Amino acid sequence: MNKTIGFAGLGNMGLPMALKLVDDGYKVRVWNRSPEKCVVLSDRGATPVPEPAAIAEPGGIVISMLADDTAVEDTTLGENGILSRLGADGVHVSMSTISPAAAARLAEAHDMVGACYVAAPVFGRPEAAKAGKLWIVVAGPEQAKQRVETVFDVLGQGSFDFGEKPEKANVVKLVGNFLIASAMEAMAEAFTLAEKHGIDRREIAELFSRTLFPCPIYQNYGKAIAENHHEPARFKLSLGLKDLDLVLKSAAAGTMPMPLADLLYNRFITSVAKGRAEIDWTGLALAVSEDAGLT
Amino acid sequence: MNKTIGFAGLGNMGLPMALKLVDDGYKVRVWNRSPEKCVVLSDRGATPVPEPAAIAEPGGIVISMLADDTAVEDTTLGENGILSRLGADGVHVSMSTISPAAAARLAEAHDMVGACYVAAPVFGRPEAAKAGKLWIVVAGPEQAKQRVETVFDVLGQGSFDFGEKPEKANVVKLVGNFLIASAMEAMAEAFTLAEKHGIDRREIAELFSRTLFPCPIYQNYGKAIAENHHEPARFKLSLGLKDLDLVLKSAAAGTMPMPLADLLYNRFITSVAKGRAEIDWTGLALAVSEDAGLT
Amino acid sequence: MNKTIGFAGLGNMGLPMALKLVDDGYKVRVWNRSPEKCVVLSDRGATPVPEPAAIAEPGGIVISMLADDTAVEDTTLGENGILSRLGADGVHVSMSTISPAAAARLAEAHDMVGACYVAAPVFGRPEAAKAGKLWIVVAGPEQAKQRVETVFDVLGQGSFDFGEKPEKANVVKLVGNFLIASAMEAMAEAFTLAEKHGIDRREIAELFSRTLFPCPIYQNYGKAIAENHHEPARFKLSLGLKDLDLVLKSAAAGTMPMPLADLLYNRFITSVAKGRAEIDWTGLALAVSEDAGLT
Amino acid sequence: MNKTIGFAGLGNMGLPMALKLVDDGYKVRVWNRSPEKCVVLSDRGATPVPEPAAIAEPGGIVISMLADDTAVEDTTLGENGILSRLGADGVHVSMSTISPAAAARLAEAHDMVGACYVAAPVFGRPEAAKAGKLWIVVAGPEQAKQRVETVFDVLGQGSFDFGEKPEKANVVKLVGNFLIASAMEAMAEAFTLAEKHGIDRREIAELFSRTLFPCPIYQNYGKAIAENHHEPARFKLSLGLKDLDLVLKSAAAGTMPMPLADLLYNRFITSVAKGRAEIDWTGLALAVSEDAGLT
Repeated sequence: MNKTIGFAGLGNMGLPMALKLVDDGYKVRVWNRSPEKCVVLSDRGATPVPEPAAIAEPGGIVISMLADDTAVEDTTLGENGILSRLGADGVHVSMSTISPAAAARLAEAHDMVGACYVAAPVFGRPEAAKAGKLWIVVAGPEQAKQRVETVFDVLGQGSFDFGEKPEKANVVKLVGNFLIASAMEAMAEAFTLAEKHGIDRREIAELFSRTLFPCPIYQNYGKAIAENHHEPARFKLSLGLKDLDLVLKSAAAGTMPMPLADLLYNRFITSVAKGRAEIDWTGLALAVSEDAGLT
Repeated sequence: MNKTIGFAGLGNMGLPMALKLVDDGYKVRVWNRSPEKCVVLSDRGATPVPEPAAIAEPGGIVISMLADDTAVEDTTLGENGILSRLGADGVHVSMSTISPAAAARLAEAHDMVGACYVAAPVFGRPEAAKAGKLWIVVAGPEQAKQRVETVFDVLGQGSFDFGEKPEKANVVKLVGNFLIASAMEAMAEAFTLAEKHGIDRREIAELFSRTLFPCPIYQNYGKAIAENHHEPARFKLSLGLKDLDLVLKSAAAGTMPMPLADLLYNRFITSVAKGRAEIDWTGLALAVSEDAGLT
Repeated sequence: MNKTIGFAGLGNMGLPMALKLVDDGYKVRVWNRSPEKCVVLSDRGATPVPEPAAIAEPGGIVISMLADDTAVEDTTLGENGILSRLGADGVHVSMSTISPAAAARLAEAHDMVGACYVAAPVFGRPEAAKAGKLWIVVAGPEQAKQRVETVFDVLGQGSFDFGEKPEKANVVKLVGNFLIASAMEAMAEAFTLAEKHGIDRREIAELFSRTLFPCPIYQNYGKAIAENHHEPARFKLSLGLKDLDLVLKSAAAGTMPMPLADLLYNRFITSVAKGRAEIDWTGLALAVSEDAGLT
Repeated sequence: MNKTIGFAGLGNMGLPMALKLVDDGYKVRVWNRSPEKCVVLSDRGATPVPEPAAIAEPGGIVISMLADDTAVEDTTLGENGILSRLGADGVHVSMSTISPAAAARLAEAHDMVGACYVAAPVFGRPEAAKAGKLWIVVAGPEQAKQRVETVFDVLGQGSFDFGEKPEKANVVKLVGNFLIASAMEAMAEAFTLAEKHGIDRREIAELFSRTLFPCPIYQNYGKAIAENHHEPARFKLSLGLKDLDLVLKSAAAGTMPMPLADLLYNRFITSVAKGRAEIDWTGLALAVSEDAGLT
């Protein structure tokens, strides 16, 4: 089997993912906007390249893990972009959290040159990426998905297939981030109510993460929210705002209200307005405390 | 050790709890407003009594598990109520979900006659009650709590102590129900968004209850919400409304807003206005679907 | 015609109302919790009395204008309260902003002694009270209303009759305060949006109070909100919170959600939590600016 | 003075505006996407033209009154669009309700060819347009504004100048529609609360439009909302949704939350989801009644 692959995007998530592939024996051509990030990979045998197109080989497989719609579209469709070289039968596995609308546009662009676009956004923090323990949500052309199955086995602990339309995987990813943010708001209000009644926030967090909600989101995010501990950011609050904006746009596209998403969006935009764009998104809880007159 | 106890309230939760005590060898005097509910207990050796006072013996232990503030106050403080007979050194373990304000009033009334009021609301469904697997949140006078510890060992899989002031346990219980309802609203909006984008509600529920939220609340409630399956009620929607009302009153007492609690309260009161008081509280999801134009 | 009347409550509104009656030739017996407030009235010929009962004469007319449910119930039903002396055929014109539920309870208590309870809450600021230009919302027994018509002519520029059940007038009063608060929130968000886009808040306020909304509420409250001018209080923010709480309780009694009322309630309770209970209720706008990151 | 002008867009508002200009002695070249709408104008002496460019003459004045961003951008910047002929020193008075972002883009495009873009959105219903009684909000280059002042005198009863940046006028227009929609939601909740307490919706509407809110918005919209009378549409509900979407986008651009705008947006999108896009935007009140269990 040909274990050659292209990889674009060495952020918090992309870097450990690319390393995992290298460690698993893949020959990786890697590109990042800031080239210095490539050093740690080239030290382990990967090949840094100067432009996105160069990570691709005609008919090969590339993975991208980038910040947002614009980054993915520029890297893919721009001059010297991935698609300028990927060609017929090439497969682009797009693992970024982007809008369903952008995914649909990208899929169409790939289609026109005979390449395949597979959306494969992931759930999991950088540690999970490093350990190959991501959860992967997949949608795209059947054959392409089969061809990259082994890649998913390296990166993830499991994958979920949502059919042939790539944008569906992106909807699912947004749904997941919405559920996480909802749990954070719920905990922030709940812990503040407890605090107002003389109960220690940490005791409440501890209780519920052992009883009703014994799962990592409540345990980890709950601890941060109970302790008002939001730095350094593992996932920036400004990215939370971006994702909730995409959730609301997807709701608009589906002609439905999402009042809880509005509430979360407002928490995030208020936090950004107050200068908190760079802290962890669990920091939405600070606005809850402030509205209660706590500091 | 004296294994004699009084028990008031044989509803969905009270009945399996009382049975568990009987099975564990307790000699139980039992009272219920509708006496026919006592038959299954008397068949197993418990003693039905005609009025609340008769479940108590001076200085003994009684448990109550009733519907709301009014029921607990009537049963305890009314003519022929528990407190008319419980007397000095008696312990009343109040396991109902009631308002912190009512708990404080009840504690004071017990104090005045030298009896002890221990608040001990629980988390868990009727099956958990039957199996002695409830989670118990406890607050009240130290000695009284020690005296009833063995009772908690029979009924629960663990207990959490929140100090001497009974009302704190009730705040914690309300916080828990708020967290559960929040998760339900989040799932209802999330699944509806997915549905609007052509994704099966059940697949989404399945994915998230295996990955981000592998815990019973998301698994069980998520399944009901994904399948629009809300009957028969395990916990009536009208009780959800009652609890959210108590949450908001506790927030008011603490001088803080709880916008997510408002959203949940509105879902419940809208559902009641539409005639859904008697279905399960997961049925709040129906209003989410309706607002999206689905039927 | 007998121009003798009793008057209880000399707050911001009660004082100018009582003065207006004195100026119109009424012989007024007046009571206030803090007796020093009675001086200005006794200087003009009114008779201060030491307890609420003493403002009443059997079969006569009394007016009360007090702070809240508790004040009205204490003053009316307490020992030495109005009702202890008002007697058969007496009329109690209750002009305070209280809950419909309290109005219903008071009406029943009057009924039991053969007296009449007329609810007559008002719209208007202290200046309007002084000028006899209040708007009066009336409900109560037909004959009693006829008997006090001349009093309403003195105090108001017009009255609106909502039938025989007193509590309906109180619902209408709450509806009015809700509409005012809604307009304030709308202006606060609107002006802040304009400000964020480099437009002067005052220009916007000016424009809309001349074009779409040429009416006093938008003109006066709009000016205060545009200029962030909230002291001294003409109507305290804490009273706004009280009224929105009554609105939400009335909505609960009617089994309906009022999401805009929730939003307003949350603005007020957040403002109180931040230490703004004593400023004017237009000060709810400060929280809008803060959420936008403005100071 | 040269009374020649171009006019694009003969919808509910554009038609009476163009007629007013003709009646005032203007020589009008008129274009509409559906040419049959031009007949009534050509009957009165206006000259229908087959494409937008043809309403312009180099250095002249044109007015556009179109449905949305896309319509204005297509008509202006498209092939055979207004700007292809308007040329240096020409003035384009853009009276449509569009996004501030689109206004800024259009202004820049005019700038590049030496033409002037004046934003001049209006408040008022078709009858006001017919009578020349619109309120006009103006922003754009100083000289251009002076040159079209006489046109504004014909169409409006007053204009408000917000400086040189056209997009500011569009922000003000959106603010106005937000204020109107806010008043509608407030009335819908208020009247429903009254109805739930046995009070006639129309009596409440009557009272408040005579006392606290004696202005056309409360009088006219209040009547429609009290009577549940929403057809035929004077301003379609789907346009309300569009405008609230623009309000929220402007809030996002300004980094601020607008929770009342979210509430309104959700009412509109719920109404559209339920099939009510074509009724009048006062029809948002139907969802308020439904949530209260009324039909």
